[in-house]
Amino acid sequence: MSFESHPAFMNFQPTPASIPPRNVVLRQVTPKDKPVYLHNLNPLAFLLRAAQIYPNKMAIAHPDTKHPVFYPFSVWCQRVQNLAYALIQAGVRPGDRVAVIAPNSPMIADAHFGFLAARCVFTPINIRLKPSEVEYIIEHSGSKLILCDREYLHLIAGISVPVIICDDTGKPDDPYEQFLAKGREFSGERSWQGLEAEPDENAASTLCYTSGTTGRPKGVVSTLRGAYLAAIGNAFESQINRDSTYLWILPMFHAAGWTYPWATVFAFATQITLRTVDYSLIWNHFLHSGVTHYCGAPTVQIGIFNHPKAKKLDRVITAIIAGSAPTAHLIGELEKIGIKPCHVYGLTFVKTYGPFTRCYEYPEWKTLSLEDRSKLMARQGQTFATAEVARVVYQPDPDLPLDKVVLVDVPKDGKTIGEIVTKGNIVMKEYLNDPEATKKAFRGGYFNTGDLAVMHPDGSIAIMDRSKDIIISGGENASSLAIEQELASHPHVLEVSVVARSHPKWGERPMAFVILHPQHAEKWAGRHAEFERDLKEHAKQRLPGFACPEWVEVVPDLPKTSTGKILKTELRKRVNNMKAKL
Amino acid sequence: MSFESHPAFMNFQPTPASIPPRNVVLRQVTPKDKPVYLHNLNPLAFLLRAAQIYPNKMAIAHPDTKHPVFYPFSVWCQRVQNLAYALIQAGVRPGDRVAVIAPNSPMIADAHFGFLAARCVFTPINIRLKPSEVEYIIEHSGSKLILCDREYLHLIAGISVPVIICDDTGKPDDPYEQFLAKGREFSGERSWQGLEAEPDENAASTLCYTSGTTGRPKGVVSTLRGAYLAAIGNAFESQINRDSTYLWILPMFHAAGWTYPWATVFAFATQITLRTVDYSLIWNHFLHSGVTHYCGAPTVQIGIFNHPKAKKLDRVITAIIAGSAPTAHLIGELEKIGIKPCHVYGLTFVKTYGPFTRCYEYPEWKTLSLEDRSKLMARQGQTFATAEVARVVYQPDPDLPLDKVVLVDVPKDGKTIGEIVTKGNIVMKEYLNDPEATKKAFRGGYFNTGDLAVMHPDGSIAIMDRSKDIIISGGENASSLAIEQELASHPHVLEVSVVARSHPKWGERPMAFVILHPQHAEKWAGRHAEFERDLKEHAKQRLPGFACPEWVEVVPDLPKTSTGKILKTELRKRVNNMKAKL
Repeated sequence: MSFESHPAFMNFQPTPASIPPRNVVLRQVTPKDKPVYLHNLNPLAFLLRAAQIYPNKMAIAHPDTKHPVFYPFSVWCQRVQNLAYALIQAGVRPGDRVAVIAPNSPMIADAHFGFLAARCVFTPINIRLKPSEVEYIIEHSGSKLILCDREYLHLIAGISVPVIICDDTGKPDDPYEQFLAKGREFSGERSWQGLEAEPDENAASTLCYTSGTTGRPKGVVSTLRGAYLAAIGNAFESQINRDSTYLWILPMFHAAGWTYPWATVFAFATQITLRTVDYSLIWNHFLHSGVTHYCGAPTVQIGIFNHPKAKKLDRVITAIIAGSAPTAHLIGELEKIGIKPCHVYGLTFVKTYGPFTRCYEYPEWKTLSLEDRSKLMARQGQTFATAEVARVVYQPDPDLPLDKVVLVDVPKDGKTIGEIVTKGNIVMKEYLNDPEATKKAFRGGYFNTGDLAVMHPDGSIAIMDRSKDIIISGGENASSLAIEQELASHPHVLEVSVVARSHPKWGERPMAFVILHPQHAEKWAGRHAEFERDLKEHAKQRLPGFACPEWVEVVPDLPKTSTGKILKTELRKRVNNMKAKL
Repeated sequence: MSFESHPAFMNFQPTPASIPPRNVVLRQVTPKDKPVYLHNLNPLAFLLRAAQIYPNKMAIAHPDTKHPVFYPFSVWCQRVQNLAYALIQAGVRPGDRVAVIAPNSPMIADAHFGFLAARCVFTPINIRLKPSEVEYIIEHSGSKLILCDREYLHLIAGISVPVIICDDTGKPDDPYEQFLAKGREFSGERSWQGLEAEPDENAASTLCYTSGTTGRPKGVVSTLRGAYLAAIGNAFESQINRDSTYLWILPMFHAAGWTYPWATVFAFATQITLRTVDYSLIWNHFLHSGVTHYCGAPTVQIGIFNHPKAKKLDRVITAIIAGSAPTAHLIGELEKIGIKPCHVYGLTFVKTYGPFTRCYEYPEWKTLSLEDRSKLMARQGQTFATAEVARVVYQPDPDLPLDKVVLVDVPKDGKTIGEIVTKGNIVMKEYLNDPEATKKAFRGGYFNTGDLAVMHPDGSIAIMDRSKDIIISGGENASSLAIEQELASHPHVLEVSVVARSHPKWGERPMAFVILHPQHAEKWAGRHAEFERDLKEHAKQRLPGFACPEWVEVVPDLPKTSTGKILKTELRKRVNNMKAKL
């Protein structure tokens, strides 16, 4: 269960520049004017502490590449230090943005700490974007430098900003390794003592760009204090500790990996990095690498339990699930193989750093049927360990100017729909260079998430829909999410997504796109119309008339984001074309 | 294993004022000028969150009194709210100090939260002090009000400050309950919305007084931010979670219970309060109440494993041990019955809120002998989860003025003795009304602990002594702690304490006070001189000549503080009298 006995580990040598000197002082020079009783909250502290306390413990294992690499905390910490000096030598100054384009790999893990040590802003870019989108982000962020994995160089072909290429080999001739080695040289062995700590805990730590479905992408700025507290919250909520092994399935570029790059180090856990979501590799690690935790959207979970290698685990693995609510089917399948789902909710692109609510379980749920329990587990739940508050509100007077907005709680009746709002340390600082958008997002003194939800009598939140996903059918608000949950309960449905399609009589009516379960696909081959009737009948028994899908279409796959979230925008485009043809 | 089926619980009714209204909003009015992305760190948030998420979960069980009481989080939270309103009604204003004199009981647990809700400073007073000492503290702190358990009223007989008496019954005719009921009435059901949150996270949370061994007691002020972060650190380091049950053996008045009154609530754990350290009751709870964690000094641990009820537990209980280092004997005895020792170190009287270092264990220790492992486990270890730094330093030029002091790290050789210093969020804010003492404590930009230690090559700290406990024997520095550890390895020694006694030739020489192990006491009855020779011989084989005790005295007991720490000041007084007789 340990990488220390892995043959690739036995043969691996870190570069000479990665080896820390004897008696390295793992402490930065802190601001002189700070009172003795205060220190700035900064996740960089987690790595210095881990390297101090568990220098020889495996921090990062990257075993599934041509050149596997393995770094214990002491070595990794030295590499992070080298990166900081290299950035400074390259002209990066405090507050500058530096972009990273990479799949899960040691380089992007380094950046989560090394950038903080150099006091620049970690700006990860989604590797699934188009070159034009990447170009926009580089320009808008004013990135001074780009760290780019060689596989994704085509994304920045036309960009004139300096680039450090990473071959992801960990070998001395890798340009990224040469960059680190130069950093070490530049340090003159001043070590951590030569790196001044950021004096403001509210300085920017991360800049993530939204996907820009409703306009140009916006840059979301988060802080050091927020990252520190959110990471501790995540470590505590997922009960990660020094005996844990975290498997990177979720991409780190996605909202800075929901703060898990920091949370795992806070807890002294081992991280395994996977460049791609490869279910065969995932199962190898589940079975042979002692994995205890991973994060992923429901789609990823489906891929996991449907894989041929899937089997009952001999210990519990905790799956932190976000992105959309887990269905009864999904929870049942995970539990069957020994995976314990932990449903959390947050906003992407570091707007809330990752999760800020969690569906807390209760002892009395144990006696419920899977179906009943799953309905409760699908709720987004209640406020996270270090978060401040989550409310579901409406604006009694929606015409008030932004600075006069008043937010009122919806009744705790599990019925009245309002918008989820939050505030406090686990909320983004601002949209970069966009005070208007920031002001709008922060109306009423809260961050307005755009997610529509109800509040149940027990105070737990259940999302009904994104505000733009609500279907207004015959004047009724139909939640696409609620419809999807009922359709997913049909045993032959693998995945389903529902969007509004315009209707001459009802205004809008739901249309469902369905992937058949592989075990049942053959049965319905050439009889999709029949299956569609069957599913509509299934819906009629469970949903009010206005919420029953008027149209069902069986599809081989669904358009998805890099993190496995279904792209409803794409489905809507399809539906709009259909409408034209009606 | 649950109090819900305890007969006393079945018969218990909280007072009407303790019952929260339906649909209580568990949220305070926060400062208007706070940015959306910031909220103040304040442990009060833990209780509001626990009452929101687990309203019906047992928060406090107080089962071993004539009138047992049991409060779930929702009820407790209402009582805390009532207390806040009652304090405000009694004229307590933000920043005012309010004293509490009580053994472990719901009232002092209430105060840990209710005082923060009323924005006054929680000022606990040790119930073992003399009335004159209590009087000094009340006067020095300027306490506006005293909450006093009826058993300890004699401590404040001559004091004119208003007192609220608590009979610890939870019944409507208890004066404390009447105080709470008046608070509820005064609230006008404005609930938490009527209580303004403290706008400064660096405001004082707690004021604890030192024992004043070297002069008048000093008032140690700690902050809300520090308490929040230290509590989360303790919850994480002890791996407390919602399935945990914490037994109160350590008095809460002692340094605000090392932040465990807040840490347990952060983790949604159940607390059991014991008015006295009664080993029979402790064993009842170990065996029948599902206890998972407790804190205590080594003396308390000895009482636990030596009790007739002691037996092998069917699950692991974690003992958080501080006050002095656990010996090999102690660790061995605890492990034999299934108690897992976790050795932490911190300073009393909230100077560091409780623990700020921990002896982290390593997998390779498992193969060591108990004796070898215990030597490693006796170290104070390394910096805690949310602490900043712990160093062992000396002042190359001790004659520099306070504001020019320079601190230099001792070599990591496990030999060179220096002083432990620390700084950051887990350090006290100041000594109340004593800027000179604060400046002295904070010389060199660190909090100087007064504890003398070495740093081992792995960066772990091992205390050699309090600076005043070092014995200068023939010009050599002999660590009384190291001598005690060797003497404690004699199988017939239960407890031992060593102090300096002046010597005509060597300046000082060690004198040992020894309690014989009950199993062996009879053997040596009437032959103490013989045992003393035996122990000296034992020492000679293990210690350098200058560290061997010149004198050994068998005693029936040792003078101790209320928390079980041996009072070396008392032993020194005895020794000084002996010297006079020489």
